[in-house]
Amino acid sequence: MPPTSETLTAERILAATEEVLRRHGPAKATVVDVARALGVSHGSVYRHFRTKAALREAVTKRWLDRTTELLAEIAGATDRDPEARLREWLAALFAAKRRKAGGDPELFATYSVLVGDAGEAVSAHIAELTGQLATIVRDGVQAGTFAVDDPQTAAHAVFQATARFHDPNYAKEWERPGVLGEFEALVDLLVRGLRA
Amino acid sequence: MPPTSETLTAERILAATEEVLRRHGPAKATVVDVARALGVSHGSVYRHFRTKAALREAVTKRWLDRTTELLAEIAGATDRDPEARLREWLAALFAAKRRKAGGDPELFATYSVLVGDAGEAVSAHIAELTGQLATIVRDGVQAGTFAVDDPQTAAHAVFQATARFHDPNYAKEWERPGVLGEFEALVDLLVRGLRA
Repeated sequence: MPPTSETLTAERILAATEEVLRRHGPAKATVVDVARALGVSHGSVYRHFRTKAALREAVTKRWLDRTTELLAEIAGATDRDPEARLREWLAALFAAKRRKAGGDPELFATYSVLVGDAGEAVSAHIAELTGQLATIVRDGVQAGTFAVDDPQTAAHAVFQATARFHDPNYAKEWERPGVLGEFEALVDLLVRGLRA
Repeated sequence: MPPTSETLTAERILAATEEVLRRHGPAKATVVDVARALGVSHGSVYRHFRTKAALREAVTKRWLDRTTELLAEIAGATDRDPEARLREWLAALFAAKRRKAGGDPELFATYSVLVGDAGEAVSAHIAELTGQLATIVRDGVQAGTFAVDDPQTAAHAVFQATARFHDPNYAKEWERPGVLGEFEALVDLLVRGLRA
């Protein structure tokens, strides 16, 4: 990226950081690389992110948030049937992960390493996703579609049960033949378990 | 282990191999180490296992088979209620994995590496476990407890859904507080999904 006179925002630093990570990998990427890509001093970067760890955590959070925002729309569509929303939400999560893993495998591998180090950002991300699922389950209970005592616990169980289709550890399974059939069978089983 | 005049059996070689792996780790353990531990020539070991890879695959299979045998008894107890057997089978699998991971973490880590290399032994192991689960589900369908179209597909879905509680990738989660409650909630959801 050439030097530029645009205002140096946190978002511009994060975009540049992602590009540097893509190019150098998580082990080698430094704040100096990021500053150079932006044509600014590394001090300017440190004014936005006080440590390299903070910058990495922020870029990881940004990456995770992209998925969360996509799914929030489905979770929030309260006018639609809860069972259909649950199926769509799970399918959208799986599709987003597959797209990330398949479309840019190097960046995906890089983020998988960062995610392993970003304990707090990841916990917050999982809590956010489970919260969205709980909203759908709760709507289902109110509509009489689902019958569970504790929507939050049920949502957590559904999230854990589908780990094979969203946990990056399983990414190499996502392009195997038959994987979509396996996903459907699992979702059917879970939806039956939630039903009244 | 001192030299001994006992007959050199495959089982004795595998037991010695496990001990060598425990001591040296998967990267360093050699066939020469195994032969030395048994007080025999490495040629004697090669008469039973033609390559180092074959020896490693056999010792991994032996380790995996210990779990399979334990669970086969529950799967085969056809006089007992299928739902209770399913719950017990899943709990026994989780307990066996926790015991292995917690009781001898170094050996567990070693086997986790070996399992990653032993593609065929692992596929056979998973097929065996899923087959046991399918037996229980099939018994449940016959008894009218469960209602699923295809017990094999449902068993596969149950196995995948519970990965968090048997896949070694998640071993560090198994001693967290609340993990048993999470396990119970997931099993409840799956059992409800299988029910008529």
